[in-house]
Amino acid sequence: MSEYKTHHYQNFSDYTVSVSFDWKLYAYDIQASIAHAKMLSNQNIITHDDSTAIVSGLELIEQEINEGKFVWQAKYEDLHMNIEARLYELIGDPAAKLHTGRSRNDQVATATRLYVRDAIDSLLSCINELQTTLVDLASNHTGTLLPGYTHLQRAQPVFLAHHLLAYFEMLDRDASRFKDARKRVNVLPLGSGALAGVPYPLNRKWVAKELGFDEITANSMDAVADRDYIVEFLASASLCIMHLSRLAEEIILWSSSEFNFLQIGSQWTTGSSIMPQKRNPDYAEITRGKTGRIYGNLIALLTTLKGLPLTYNRDLQEDKQGLFDTHTTLLAACEVMNGMLKDSQFNTNRMQSAAEDSSLLATDFADYLVAKGLPFREAHSIVSNLCDLAAVEKISIINLPLDTLLEFSNLFSEDIYEITPFASASSRDLTGGTSPNQVLKAIADAKKRLGVNNELH
Amino acid sequence: MSEYKTHHYQNFSDYTVSVSFDWKLYAYDIQASIAHAKMLSNQNIITHDDSTAIVSGLELIEQEINEGKFVWQAKYEDLHMNIEARLYELIGDPAAKLHTGRSRNDQVATATRLYVRDAIDSLLSCINELQTTLVDLASNHTGTLLPGYTHLQRAQPVFLAHHLLAYFEMLDRDASRFKDARKRVNVLPLGSGALAGVPYPLNRKWVAKELGFDEITANSMDAVADRDYIVEFLASASLCIMHLSRLAEEIILWSSSEFNFLQIGSQWTTGSSIMPQKRNPDYAEITRGKTGRIYGNLIALLTTLKGLPLTYNRDLQEDKQGLFDTHTTLLAACEVMNGMLKDSQFNTNRMQSAAEDSSLLATDFADYLVAKGLPFREAHSIVSNLCDLAAVEKISIINLPLDTLLEFSNLFSEDIYEITPFASASSRDLTGGTSPNQVLKAIADAKKRLGVNNELH
Amino acid sequence: MSEYKTHHYQNFSDYTVSVSFDWKLYAYDIQASIAHAKMLSNQNIITHDDSTAIVSGLELIEQEINEGKFVWQAKYEDLHMNIEARLYELIGDPAAKLHTGRSRNDQVATATRLYVRDAIDSLLSCINELQTTLVDLASNHTGTLLPGYTHLQRAQPVFLAHHLLAYFEMLDRDASRFKDARKRVNVLPLGSGALAGVPYPLNRKWVAKELGFDEITANSMDAVADRDYIVEFLASASLCIMHLSRLAEEIILWSSSEFNFLQIGSQWTTGSSIMPQKRNPDYAEITRGKTGRIYGNLIALLTTLKGLPLTYNRDLQEDKQGLFDTHTTLLAACEVMNGMLKDSQFNTNRMQSAAEDSSLLATDFADYLVAKGLPFREAHSIVSNLCDLAAVEKISIINLPLDTLLEFSNLFSEDIYEITPFASASSRDLTGGTSPNQVLKAIADAKKRLGVNNELH
Amino acid sequence: MSEYKTHHYQNFSDYTVSVSFDWKLYAYDIQASIAHAKMLSNQNIITHDDSTAIVSGLELIEQEINEGKFVWQAKYEDLHMNIEARLYELIGDPAAKLHTGRSRNDQVATATRLYVRDAIDSLLSCINELQTTLVDLASNHTGTLLPGYTHLQRAQPVFLAHHLLAYFEMLDRDASRFKDARKRVNVLPLGSGALAGVPYPLNRKWVAKELGFDEITANSMDAVADRDYIVEFLASASLCIMHLSRLAEEIILWSSSEFNFLQIGSQWTTGSSIMPQKRNPDYAEITRGKTGRIYGNLIALLTTLKGLPLTYNRDLQEDKQGLFDTHTTLLAACEVMNGMLKDSQFNTNRMQSAAEDSSLLATDFADYLVAKGLPFREAHSIVSNLCDLAAVEKISIINLPLDTLLEFSNLFSEDIYEITPFASASSRDLTGGTSPNQVLKAIADAKKRLGVNNELH
Repeated sequence: MSEYKTHHYQNFSDYTVSVSFDWKLYAYDIQASIAHAKMLSNQNIITHDDSTAIVSGLELIEQEINEGKFVWQAKYEDLHMNIEARLYELIGDPAAKLHTGRSRNDQVATATRLYVRDAIDSLLSCINELQTTLVDLASNHTGTLLPGYTHLQRAQPVFLAHHLLAYFEMLDRDASRFKDARKRVNVLPLGSGALAGVPYPLNRKWVAKELGFDEITANSMDAVADRDYIVEFLASASLCIMHLSRLAEEIILWSSSEFNFLQIGSQWTTGSSIMPQKRNPDYAEITRGKTGRIYGNLIALLTTLKGLPLTYNRDLQEDKQGLFDTHTTLLAACEVMNGMLKDSQFNTNRMQSAAEDSSLLATDFADYLVAKGLPFREAHSIVSNLCDLAAVEKISIINLPLDTLLEFSNLFSEDIYEITPFASASSRDLTGGTSPNQVLKAIADAKKRLGVNNELH
Repeated sequence: MSEYKTHHYQNFSDYTVSVSFDWKLYAYDIQASIAHAKMLSNQNIITHDDSTAIVSGLELIEQEINEGKFVWQAKYEDLHMNIEARLYELIGDPAAKLHTGRSRNDQVATATRLYVRDAIDSLLSCINELQTTLVDLASNHTGTLLPGYTHLQRAQPVFLAHHLLAYFEMLDRDASRFKDARKRVNVLPLGSGALAGVPYPLNRKWVAKELGFDEITANSMDAVADRDYIVEFLASASLCIMHLSRLAEEIILWSSSEFNFLQIGSQWTTGSSIMPQKRNPDYAEITRGKTGRIYGNLIALLTTLKGLPLTYNRDLQEDKQGLFDTHTTLLAACEVMNGMLKDSQFNTNRMQSAAEDSSLLATDFADYLVAKGLPFREAHSIVSNLCDLAAVEKISIINLPLDTLLEFSNLFSEDIYEITPFASASSRDLTGGTSPNQVLKAIADAKKRLGVNNELH
Repeated sequence: MSEYKTHHYQNFSDYTVSVSFDWKLYAYDIQASIAHAKMLSNQNIITHDDSTAIVSGLELIEQEINEGKFVWQAKYEDLHMNIEARLYELIGDPAAKLHTGRSRNDQVATATRLYVRDAIDSLLSCINELQTTLVDLASNHTGTLLPGYTHLQRAQPVFLAHHLLAYFEMLDRDASRFKDARKRVNVLPLGSGALAGVPYPLNRKWVAKELGFDEITANSMDAVADRDYIVEFLASASLCIMHLSRLAEEIILWSSSEFNFLQIGSQWTTGSSIMPQKRNPDYAEITRGKTGRIYGNLIALLTTLKGLPLTYNRDLQEDKQGLFDTHTTLLAACEVMNGMLKDSQFNTNRMQSAAEDSSLLATDFADYLVAKGLPFREAHSIVSNLCDLAAVEKISIINLPLDTLLEFSNLFSEDIYEITPFASASSRDLTGGTSPNQVLKAIADAKKRLGVNNELH
Repeated sequence: MSEYKTHHYQNFSDYTVSVSFDWKLYAYDIQASIAHAKMLSNQNIITHDDSTAIVSGLELIEQEINEGKFVWQAKYEDLHMNIEARLYELIGDPAAKLHTGRSRNDQVATATRLYVRDAIDSLLSCINELQTTLVDLASNHTGTLLPGYTHLQRAQPVFLAHHLLAYFEMLDRDASRFKDARKRVNVLPLGSGALAGVPYPLNRKWVAKELGFDEITANSMDAVADRDYIVEFLASASLCIMHLSRLAEEIILWSSSEFNFLQIGSQWTTGSSIMPQKRNPDYAEITRGKTGRIYGNLIALLTTLKGLPLTYNRDLQEDKQGLFDTHTTLLAACEVMNGMLKDSQFNTNRMQSAAEDSSLLATDFADYLVAKGLPFREAHSIVSNLCDLAAVEKISIINLPLDTLLEFSNLFSEDIYEITPFASASSRDLTGGTSPNQVLKAIADAKKRLGVNNELH
């Protein structure tokens, strides 16, 4: 007996029912309907009494939904019809007047834009918090060295603060993109009617102001056919989760036995019943895995929109689930990464010891000999041999005794010990570089930017 | 007050909880557990009594779930732990023995493969039904002519049966692909343990046979890291929904005022409150729109799998929602298209009249003159002029009187009226061509293939 | 004999060679190298003579490439090494000093950002031109009525100008997005070194100013690992080509025999040798088809970036081909659509006649009867019957004689003939609506916006 | 001066020109034309002399192309017209007869199917070679232990042979998928005409046999509109490159300083000028990076095909570049991975030492104590303490002296030293498990499968 039997589409009208997911827009739909009703009365299109009845009815419905008392019915297909039907039950004939000068096409676009605007604001808050955590961690690790990697090969020593602030920058661009997207989201489509505009003297600007929209749409056909504001949200979210996937990858690598740079707080791992030290980085893995989901939502909507003639086509109903899923997923991923970073410990001794790897400092050794007059090729050969010796002895070349060094070249002297990971990192003292000086400036600058951003939304 | 407050991740463990979606695997998980328990007892790894208790307990749990009495608990994270916990409540200590020689990694892979196998079978049935409908419609329309299009321009007259059978072929390839995928799905991973195999004398082949698997997996590390069977399902589904999107596009075009080739059954349209003849092809539009969703699910899983090291990583938990959604969506789309086709009426008069369009037969006219000895270029010029005249008179060139034709060339005679859309279509009398002869053969062949396919699954 | 033989990877180093495509960056790479060399000399890091030699050498190389005289060599792998090698041939030792304080990681990021900035500017110009064409066409068609469609069903009459301006709005958002992306592109990464910064007293701000960058990057590790500026470009391009695919779809529909609203200029179609009136809309079809290519380039780079640890990984080399292809494709699509629109003729008679379709005006008829006192349900029934009659007589209800109307209801009088497509469209007289008044305002506003935009870049 | 100037589309016809890429089909197009010409003569549709002239002309053209002497001309737009024009130059009038009973629509589908068939065969060969390399390496490492990982955490010891054979299985599925796809590719569309079939007595089956096709297409409209055979190829390629991306990821991880399990042959790395031991795994990184490109090509074609009405639309021209690119990319990736694996050295000492990690064997220790009668919880606690001690002493628990063990529990005795990674791995002795016994069987089985596969194509 297959489970599918029960899922079989015996009632084909399910195919077009959207209330199973679009109910999530209810607060936005009611908010917009209230503004519309008030405006209709202000413009003398409906009476003040009708408007008051509508507003009270809608407020009651919102309360019912908030309290879980509202009964959603598939027979009314979508969110809007469910609320309309309930409004009629509650207040009778005036309910019918709410739809004056409005169609479902501009109504749903309005509610969705309010949702996206709120979604962006919630993400901006979360990104800000995650950035704050990164700056806090950076402040604690301005003196912690670790290897910087290219090609997953140790390349040059950097300060952990510097490494962490790289993610601050990525998130800053994410915030910047979401803010730019918000401008194009925050435009009121209500008043576009089904496609051609509305034959009533609405006051679109008043409604826009009431709902916090910056502008009103300029073309009714575009207004009901447009879903750019969702695609742009999904594209910005794709970039943001991509950044989190890179952070997640590093958390996974760093908490492996082989790297052992990071101990993730146990709340953020799943353990083994037998080995208390065993900590699977499940939260980081799921974040990395969820990247696919958001990319998929982006490509799904782009595909749906390809080649659609004007204006509204029912295909557009497919815009919402990917939007809701992306918002929920990205917000959770952002909060999880923030919580996990806060609860984790860096194994700074392991990092420091890795930063002393001969391979990270060999260049400096060769430069030292060149500066003392040796041709580069000869210097290179000497340092290679030193590295081989150090590898055998399992120490770093910077820890070889001077006697040993002198066996390879008499140009070595005590000042060779000035070559350290710290000295190497400190020498990169330009804006954007890893020197302690620059890192402190970067932290200060980051704090300033965070403050400004925080005020903005 | 934003809705997000209530959705805020206060309990971060939600992030890793999968029971909200993986409960759908319950029948498959229980089925596999029962087979495992029986085998453990057959192999004397657990006692017969323990095995009997486990089987009874699991059967009871399945019944509880079927009847909606089972309480899923987020604290147990996934489907498997929920069932395990309930089994312990029901039968006590023997419950713990069920997990002997098994890990969650091979357990979940087994349940998922059973799901995919069933999903494929349900789709094969539905595809078969849709193909049957197409053949039935073709049988009714072996004499109905319409224009065949290239570039959405009328090109050559074809029989409607021939047009419909093009979709039969697409669906036949879909069925063929799903069957091939099924072979690679139908392999038992149980017995692979967490990753390295199992230190118990299990009888994997017995379990495979019990569960209807054709083979057992050959490498434990691959078996727990592999999700090819889902990707291949999603890729096959993407091709199938793409075919349905092409059919949907034609239904939408054909039911426009401009084409007016098709009257969709009113059950499959949404109407206008004022215009009873107005019929929006919402079901077809939604089918076309859902194409994006399935493509998105495909790219999501491919992205998740990219670059994952062996073996199991928690990212793999992201495999299920896209699978379930794709299966449900494609099955519904297939059933909807089938129901809609059955309920719709072709406007055969409109089709016939469009098939008489001069532009479809001008080539035949020119060939006629060439056959009578005129150089091609001259024939071409004459026919162009005839077309212009016919356009002005709003009739087809095949309906111009002989007198008129003779004004353009004295090579015309009565036999020119043998040129008809029917004659043109009938001349294409090779396997795969649109002639009535070939179409009848194609229908017979299609019926034979349907019968064979029907027996296979 | 298979072609593959010749393509067989006998020399595996081809796999890493990028000069076959990255040569396209040459002008940008040379521009950045010249600025770097001048700065090195300004800062006394290299001598003035060396700097002068480098600059002259690079200018000569650019000329050689422009003139097709430069020999690109696979053995030098990438663009940068090809230029470096040639510079050494031309000026000897000073060539080696150009790489002081620079690594290939920050060098390639700089050249690519310059390319993207230029790509955006070229697209902004093209979008502006296409918008201008739309406004010009709109200006010519402020009085042309056609049906506005929802669900590809005729819905309400609109003016062609209004329909065309819907695309103006879409393109305006595209321009807005590209400009926002440009801000994040226009940041100088040079001075980030391989990953950790540079141990030389470079003047990054001077270089930024010299190259027209607004800012310098704030973190060296991020600067060499970041490809956001390409992803954002690809996402903006995906939205833009999606808009063009919708326009293309309408052009294809409108130039079908069934719609016959548009005659595409013959330069933009491919014809048939026999039927001069046959015009395949190949340019529009290819534009629609190329949408997939740009979406594919977007998902490709997002996939490549997923889960990459810091900092530079060779995977990033995969960023360029999709970028170049997207830029070239979108620019061509934009120009093609622009040229095609300019050369095409609207069949305004067909449009007007379609706009008189009963189904577009039935609502107004019912409203008329309601206004005269009839209950809505009764009015609805009467109009339905009228529509049926009109369909049989193959005319629009607005052309039924008053005698006939009076047989259905004695509420009809002469003023019924005030209901026309024109009157219906004119009544939608709010900002964004299709009334002639609003359309003229929209055209004026569009022209103003075009002027401002044109000044901006 | 921007580069774009030179790329500007002054000649818009470039937009439709495909010869810049479709020339790659030349050998297939000529092969199919020769078969067509022979059949036309066999069927007495053209004369034997004309057929002979055509065949000779085409053979000469192929030679010209092979030798690089053929001049491709954009004015002829595509491959087919270029060859046709040259054929006319070479043999005059008979050239025109080649196109009898053929259209470009079925012609291009035929050539493309021949290409895909060859592409599959070349990939099957390469996959077979890579599988052979994996089996050879596995044969050399049946006794090499390393940690098996889940969540990138060390989980259980496995033999390297077992790990390598996991990739053998993935590739085996890839081969199986390509073979299944090949069946659906290997069907002849020629004889379908433009869309409706052909009014000539062609012998389609003869042509099919001549060209090695297994079947002929059953519906002409489907035959010219179908691109499933390319999508299925791209989907199979996406799975294959995904597998290679996982292998590449492991190669990158294993060649990091932290893992140090693998020394990639220097031919397959890019080095540092100063550190001879530094080896960037560029070939593996590029393979991982190219995964995005193939996914992108898949989604591109799926997008292009979505919602296209029957039959041929010019959008379909977009099918080829992604196909060629995918084939070339995947073939190169496969060959590169094969060459790299052959040239690399496993650091078996490091692997063995990692396999002795306490965390991999703690479970066995606890099981030991349980078997001696201790309650599980108590055993678990003792072993946890032992692990802590071992961590402090930087050795594995299996190397702690018996005296030390006895301080924790007097149940330990000499037989505790029977617990080793080797014993743990050996105990997993079921089909698919990692025991030496199973691994040897798996190698033998793999060799048998390789032999059979090799015969098949």
